[in-house]
Amino acid sequence: MKIAVIGTGMVGRVLAGRLAGLGHDVVIGTRDVQETLARTETDALGTVPYAQWQAEHDDVQLMVFEEAGRFAELVVNASNGSNSIAALRAVGAENLRRKVLVDVALPLDMSQGMPPTLSVANTDSLGEQIQREFPEARVVKTLNTVFCQVMVDPDRVPGDHTLFIAGNDEDAKNTAGQILTEFGWPADRVIDLGDITGARGTEMYMRLYFQLAGLFNTFELNIQLQIAENAAQH
Amino acid sequence: MKIAVIGTGMVGRVLAGRLAGLGHDVVIGTRDVQETLARTETDALGTVPYAQWQAEHDDVQLMVFEEAGRFAELVVNASNGSNSIAALRAVGAENLRRKVLVDVALPLDMSQGMPPTLSVANTDSLGEQIQREFPEARVVKTLNTVFCQVMVDPDRVPGDHTLFIAGNDEDAKNTAGQILTEFGWPADRVIDLGDITGARGTEMYMRLYFQLAGLFNTFELNIQLQIAENAAQH
Repeated sequence: MKIAVIGTGMVGRVLAGRLAGLGHDVVIGTRDVQETLARTETDALGTVPYAQWQAEHDDVQLMVFEEAGRFAELVVNASNGSNSIAALRAVGAENLRRKVLVDVALPLDMSQGMPPTLSVANTDSLGEQIQREFPEARVVKTLNTVFCQVMVDPDRVPGDHTLFIAGNDEDAKNTAGQILTEFGWPADRVIDLGDITGARGTEMYMRLYFQLAGLFNTFELNIQLQIAENAAQH
Repeated sequence: MKIAVIGTGMVGRVLAGRLAGLGHDVVIGTRDVQETLARTETDALGTVPYAQWQAEHDDVQLMVFEEAGRFAELVVNASNGSNSIAALRAVGAENLRRKVLVDVALPLDMSQGMPPTLSVANTDSLGEQIQREFPEARVVKTLNTVFCQVMVDPDRVPGDHTLFIAGNDEDAKNTAGQILTEFGWPADRVIDLGDITGARGTEMYMRLYFQLAGLFNTFELNIQLQIAENAAQH
């Protein structure tokens, strides 16, 4: 499948590299190709300059947002949550129309330090904001509850841990679900929370997640849902 | 231990009944004893009138809030979150001074239906509000991530599922932790999130919890933390 990953950071690169390794035609979208390639800083988390990563991943092409959007059959939003709406506007609503838009981003506010607060929570979510902004895109919120390395390789964390998916369009969730299967997520561990308002619970969970990540000094953790045996799914 | 449970609803009764069964001296606090005993309605969740429950639990005594507070060495806040500050004011700041105050309440706003939103979230929590309102009480937030029947009997849910505890006072967390052990929570499944701001993550998680409860048609569920083996706790 032709996939555009929006975001040149660690999350975007891990997703793009894995998707390309699975045989998809993958591009990464950025605002300014030359500016992105000219960066020389390694960030606080050890993420190397983009060009260094690109040199090792010639199966992934860097394009400006709009070009990436035109190319793609499916778009993955892996941009910084505070910049997601702006980045997706640059991709272009017309390039998102009817396409599956897999949103893995988090609306994190780091201004108060760690663990972060959320810039939207409780009565709304980033997933809902994106769906409202691009009503003709078929937004699927998923993967956002785990670290990027775990998104693409769930076996890095032990146990039958759980992933969530939410979105208004059943076909779009099925398409996203196929990618989850390719990443290694067994279908019976992916819980469909229903429409895009399900994004709210998974984004709000991130406060606990980041606190646990700090406590255990790793982002490689997840939660496994345990249900009493007398329970029956609706 | 002399324990006052604040709240005459399902949560308070389950906790009080279990604590009395464990041999503690347990009272339940209410605003008006006669009014509470005069109620005749069974609520939407099937909770019987208080007097009917009381008749089967003569090891638990009903008292007005202030009297319950004076009696107690340890207080459990099992009131409706929207009423918790008012109920605890009626218990009396002087009756909470230096005492362990185990807060299991949730700041739920049901006005928009299920799943609920929270009346406080993201930059604050009910646990923090209670600690600020009663600075001399030693507030411990715990048990709030599971249904009351699971609070007092974790084996109702399969697996090595996880409980959280947060509070500013280490001795108070140790005291609360002893009660968790009596309820059946193994110490290695109780994660100390640090100071009372840890309440924020556990309260925010409840959006996801209530959505899962609706989806699986049971409140008897919990999450089990899974961590990559290379992780080391701080």
